[in-house]
Amino acid sequence: MAAMSDKEKTFIAVIGGGQCSTEEAELAEAVGRELARRGAVLVCGGLGGVMKAACKGARSEGGTTIGILPGDSRRQANPYVQIPVVTGIGEARNAIVVKSAQAVIAIGGSYGTLSEISFARQRNIPVIGLNTWSLSRNGQPENSIILAQNATDAVDKALNLARN
Amino acid sequence: MAAMSDKEKTFIAVIGGGQCSTEEAELAEAVGRELARRGAVLVCGGLGGVMKAACKGARSEGGTTIGILPGDSRRQANPYVQIPVVTGIGEARNAIVVKSAQAVIAIGGSYGTLSEISFARQRNIPVIGLNTWSLSRNGQPENSIILAQNATDAVDKALNLARN
Amino acid sequence: MAAMSDKEKTFIAVIGGGQCSTEEAELAEAVGRELARRGAVLVCGGLGGVMKAACKGARSEGGTTIGILPGDSRRQANPYVQIPVVTGIGEARNAIVVKSAQAVIAIGGSYGTLSEISFARQRNIPVIGLNTWSLSRNGQPENSIILAQNATDAVDKALNLARN
Amino acid sequence: MAAMSDKEKTFIAVIGGGQCSTEEAELAEAVGRELARRGAVLVCGGLGGVMKAACKGARSEGGTTIGILPGDSRRQANPYVQIPVVTGIGEARNAIVVKSAQAVIAIGGSYGTLSEISFARQRNIPVIGLNTWSLSRNGQPENSIILAQNATDAVDKALNLARN
Repeated sequence: MAAMSDKEKTFIAVIGGGQCSTEEAELAEAVGRELARRGAVLVCGGLGGVMKAACKGARSEGGTTIGILPGDSRRQANPYVQIPVVTGIGEARNAIVVKSAQAVIAIGGSYGTLSEISFARQRNIPVIGLNTWSLSRNGQPENSIILAQNATDAVDKALNLARN
Repeated sequence: MAAMSDKEKTFIAVIGGGQCSTEEAELAEAVGRELARRGAVLVCGGLGGVMKAACKGARSEGGTTIGILPGDSRRQANPYVQIPVVTGIGEARNAIVVKSAQAVIAIGGSYGTLSEISFARQRNIPVIGLNTWSLSRNGQPENSIILAQNATDAVDKALNLARN
Repeated sequence: MAAMSDKEKTFIAVIGGGQCSTEEAELAEAVGRELARRGAVLVCGGLGGVMKAACKGARSEGGTTIGILPGDSRRQANPYVQIPVVTGIGEARNAIVVKSAQAVIAIGGSYGTLSEISFARQRNIPVIGLNTWSLSRNGQPENSIILAQNATDAVDKALNLARN
Repeated sequence: MAAMSDKEKTFIAVIGGGQCSTEEAELAEAVGRELARRGAVLVCGGLGGVMKAACKGARSEGGTTIGILPGDSRRQANPYVQIPVVTGIGEARNAIVVKSAQAVIAIGGSYGTLSEISFARQRNIPVIGLNTWSLSRNGQPENSIILAQNATDAVDKALNLARN
């Protein structure tokens, strides 16, 4: 662990499907690498798909990876999770993933990801989106998910917004 | 309590904002009344706005109302909640509201409601929408929220889908 | 459901092992019956053993029974649970069982029961014990579990303490 | 973060009161120091008292400290927590503290600590006690809390038991 406390570092959640396409995995891995290069700590749900790819990217650059697991065993964590947190509370752990972060990057994803986007926005935590959900309320577009062009752009935006 | 166990009854969650417009409150109250007339048990988050209006409607017809509260005190419940469940787990209780139901009716609502819609869809629990969120994924409309025309239509659809 | 709102009724949690001896089951059933006769609502973890016996007793006298389930399906509830609450948060639901009650009756039980006793005492909710845990702290007896002689005595004490 | 993944390290929870005596704080700090020297990761509830002292000790030796917070803000963490996990689920987070560890060291403590001991024992996670609770069940002593003489002895026992 570096001399600077991780608490002083920025914590960014990367969320997305437990299963994902090759493109999404590449995007997640690039996001993980970039977060680690910038000294951010990666928080995720600790499982496969986007979570695993993001952790892999972060570890390849020596970053810290936290996995907030839904089940009762640390064995559930993907091999790139350094800090497995064993919640045992099922999908309700989605709220913990985003509350533990200062900004969120969403890559693809299904309903679990959408619940995380919702919890983040409810708490006014910025959400950056890469090929993910978009929302309308009562027929009006709801633009609270900030679109990014690519992994670097997503990390730029997440770190800028997290620091404010 | 009637001779038939409530467990044999259908449990329907009504979700929506803790603050709401007069129109949404009227809609929620009508939904609550209709659910009670059909013998369904109403589950909700137990607070104000749509939750309170729905409970009020259900109680006016002698229905059973369950409030899954986020905080640590039953005093948080609106006065029409008969069964206050004191979770103390904050917004993570949103997952419990929908898991305890066999179908969900969403009326308006903000990000908390969206998290409940997400959790319901993740578990394949039908969601009926009245003037609420609509979703697109990767630019494609995602039609998993079933639109209803009015309170009676919403209750019809919820009960039909819950029984299958 | 009776005219009086259940919310105005006293909610008493009955806690104990998911497996139990015949004697414990008889005691739990007697406690459930007595709670229902006095108009109290029974809250429990919704599973077998002491929980099932207590619910059975309460239902035999027309009482209301709430089961706060750890898993993801209402099918997990014992057949005497009227109001299954599906938490999906595993043993963390033990905190919800006791927070939803105004007093707690503990019958036998293992570590899960002990966690419930702990959560109740942490929130200053009275705990009445029947053949259950006793505690010492730093070598000094800790008498915060109130001993009862039998089912009727336990219910008397629980209702008296809950009303204060 | 060292080259070896923290996941391969042993995670030990230190539990105890959010307020504590000077002696308990000294004991906790010594436990934290010793855990860090042996390369273990410290998990705790992230607040004051025993938790703060243990984190302080661990950080003084360059150890990793994880704080599983009950509230909704990382600001709640004591200054020696490196990895704040923001659960927002209140005392139900006690289950997460112990599930995330391979052994538990209990120092003094009140009912919250007792709930953590209970959850640990329920999952068969070893608990080492320093001046803490002792338990009897149905009048029979229950010796599942392993007594330690001092901080070093507690850490020895915790690491030995965690590795099996």
